[in-house]
Amino acid sequence: MARNISIIPKAPIARILMDAGAKRVSAEAVDAFTDVIIDIAEEISTKAVKIAQHSGRKTVHDGDIKLAVK
Amino acid sequence: MARNISIIPKAPIARILMDAGAKRVSAEAVDAFTDVIIDIAEEISTKAVKIAQHSGRKTVHDGDIKLAVK
Repeated sequence: MARNISIIPKAPIARILMDAGAKRVSAEAVDAFTDVIIDIAEEISTKAVKIAQHSGRKTVHDGDIKLAVK
Repeated sequence: MARNISIIPKAPIARILMDAGAKRVSAEAVDAFTDVIIDIAEEISTKAVKIAQHSGRKTVHDGDIKLAVK
C-alpha cells in the first residue's frame, strides 16, 4: 500500500473516520481505507475520462463525474 | 461544496483524474469529484465504525474497513 502514501494524504482520511464516530483507528485501518478510497477514485476517473472522450471532449466536466458515479 | 475544501485537498484528486488519461479537467469537475469521494468515504466510515462497535471494540481495524466496503 506504499503507493498510496504519495497520492492522498492520510490525515484527512483518518479524520473522516474519526468524524464518523471512531474512538480510535489503527494505522493499518487508515492504510486500508486510503487504499480503498484511491481504488474507487481511480475507477470513477477512468469512467469519467471515457465518458468525456465519448462526447468528443478533451476536458472532463463535472457532468462526466456525476454520470461515472451512477 | 465548500465543505470539502477543508477535508481532502483537491490537488491529489485532480491528479488521479489526470493519471486516468484526462487531458484537461474543469474546476467544477474537481469539485464534484472531491464531493463524491468524500461522500463515499463517509459512508464507508460510518459502516466501519458500526462494525467495530458491534464487535465490542473502540478501535477501528483494517478488517472493519474491508468488511464495510463489501
